[in-house]
Amino acid sequence: MNKRSEIRPDWIAVDWGTTNLRAWAIGQGQVLAELTSDDGMGKLPRDGFEPALLRLIEPWFESRPPVVACGMVGSRQGWCEAPYRTTPCAPLDQAALVQAPTTDPRLRVSIAPGLKQTAPADVMRGEETQIAGALALMPGYDGVFCLPGTHTKWVHISAGEVVSFQTFMTGEMFALLSEASVLRHGMQGGGWDDAAFDIGVSDALSRPERIGARLFSLRAEGLVAGLAPAAARSRLSGLLIGTELAAARPYWLGQRVTLIGAEKLSAAYARALAVQGVATDMLSATACTLAGLSTLALQTEAAPQ
Amino acid sequence: MNKRSEIRPDWIAVDWGTTNLRAWAIGQGQVLAELTSDDGMGKLPRDGFEPALLRLIEPWFESRPPVVACGMVGSRQGWCEAPYRTTPCAPLDQAALVQAPTTDPRLRVSIAPGLKQTAPADVMRGEETQIAGALALMPGYDGVFCLPGTHTKWVHISAGEVVSFQTFMTGEMFALLSEASVLRHGMQGGGWDDAAFDIGVSDALSRPERIGARLFSLRAEGLVAGLAPAAARSRLSGLLIGTELAAARPYWLGQRVTLIGAEKLSAAYARALAVQGVATDMLSATACTLAGLSTLALQTEAAPQ
Repeated sequence: MNKRSEIRPDWIAVDWGTTNLRAWAIGQGQVLAELTSDDGMGKLPRDGFEPALLRLIEPWFESRPPVVACGMVGSRQGWCEAPYRTTPCAPLDQAALVQAPTTDPRLRVSIAPGLKQTAPADVMRGEETQIAGALALMPGYDGVFCLPGTHTKWVHISAGEVVSFQTFMTGEMFALLSEASVLRHGMQGGGWDDAAFDIGVSDALSRPERIGARLFSLRAEGLVAGLAPAAARSRLSGLLIGTELAAARPYWLGQRVTLIGAEKLSAAYARALAVQGVATDMLSATACTLAGLSTLALQTEAAPQ
Repeated sequence: MNKRSEIRPDWIAVDWGTTNLRAWAIGQGQVLAELTSDDGMGKLPRDGFEPALLRLIEPWFESRPPVVACGMVGSRQGWCEAPYRTTPCAPLDQAALVQAPTTDPRLRVSIAPGLKQTAPADVMRGEETQIAGALALMPGYDGVFCLPGTHTKWVHISAGEVVSFQTFMTGEMFALLSEASVLRHGMQGGGWDDAAFDIGVSDALSRPERIGARLFSLRAEGLVAGLAPAAARSRLSGLLIGTELAAARPYWLGQRVTLIGAEKLSAAYARALAVQGVATDMLSATACTLAGLSTLALQTEAAPQ
């Protein structure tokens, strides 16, 4: 008996994004094991998904567990398209799961669709599963979710449905500006400066229309006034998050806000919102993804009966 | 007598930026010839500047003409640092020219310094020469120059001096967002859509604080509503230029504005400003660079007498 057979999951949860593939072996409602690869949707041809998944989950495959996946794997450029569901609606619907075409008959893969909003136009893919998981973890929640990340989402929830949502490119802008723009020269090295972050948030919230003028100042202050790299990077983060908060005000003003995301980034949002008098709760993005996929897995298992 | 000796310039004008090196042979006030290479400052070690210049201008070198250069060649990472002069001041000052160290005794290279502003912190390097050239072309000009480009500059001119200026990263943001961000997927191919540009400018000027929310809409409208790539790219340009205009309002409101830049980009700024009731003149950036370097060359030749 070899080692791989020691893990016999009931089902396998998969979060398959543009850059990464993550899988969890789930047994009796618990995570038995976790595996990750960089076989993201972005680098796979259509016929590369099945082999990439099999390579990763092969150690868990003896019990032929069903696979439930969310994320960009269901996009038009993914394994197979899981067409967007239209808001307002519940974040997930078992009936809308799409079965991925497989050549290996042992493999059963269900993909959760994303959500789209018609006006103003917006889309999400992967976050709907986190939202469903958050609602499973906090039954009866009414209020707002903020999912900070590459493309931060603000989501208004009422009666278990996604009523409206809005996407901000804050995380991607931070990455581009701090790593690929002229500002990168003044942001080398590590470190963080809370005070500089706070100034950035406050400047952006009080005069958001000046964002265009404030970015190059980070470079110029480095050259002319010796602005430290940690302060420059922290103020850039504050400026971008503050600009987002200025536009997202209808989502957080006077609302109950729960942050779903990576711990450090969520903490930055919590800090910025606290200055505006908004208290926030925090949930782990991974915990929400697993809780969301679990709601589908349970329904999937129950369905044939 | 070989061909190269046919060009015997009085002096050589050089615009040496981060990515390109351009040189003009000037004789009796006229451009006799032009040469370009991609030996920009960004890819040269300190001891690489002299050979790169000699390689390029060798065909013109029989008459040992002096060289006058502007741009990033004078930055701390350039051939030799030409320290910033501090505003308010005239854009160029012959006395502040820095002689580059050379090993070839035939070579005389003068580098024009850039300008810095202490509060708010800002810097320019290369544009000061265009500004001096524009003032030479329009003697007695009082008003505002806008120099659209990777880092657009707005410059307030009074009595021949740069009184204040401000830099916007609009061009670099457009390049990053349209070529390196998720938005690139909806912007493939050529084409331009004036109406979409106008909508972007108008949206940004009326609610500039919403820029963060509007960017991802370009992607979402492509997925959900079939927004055409040309319209998406033109609206992105309009949104970014409109956001800049919102913050630069003190520079253009009720002012005489002259645009100095590439023709197509200047035309986009002129179009956006016209809707705000601001008429603009246009000058070619290259013509201004040459006119600015000429003011230094004339003074350099006159100095020893």
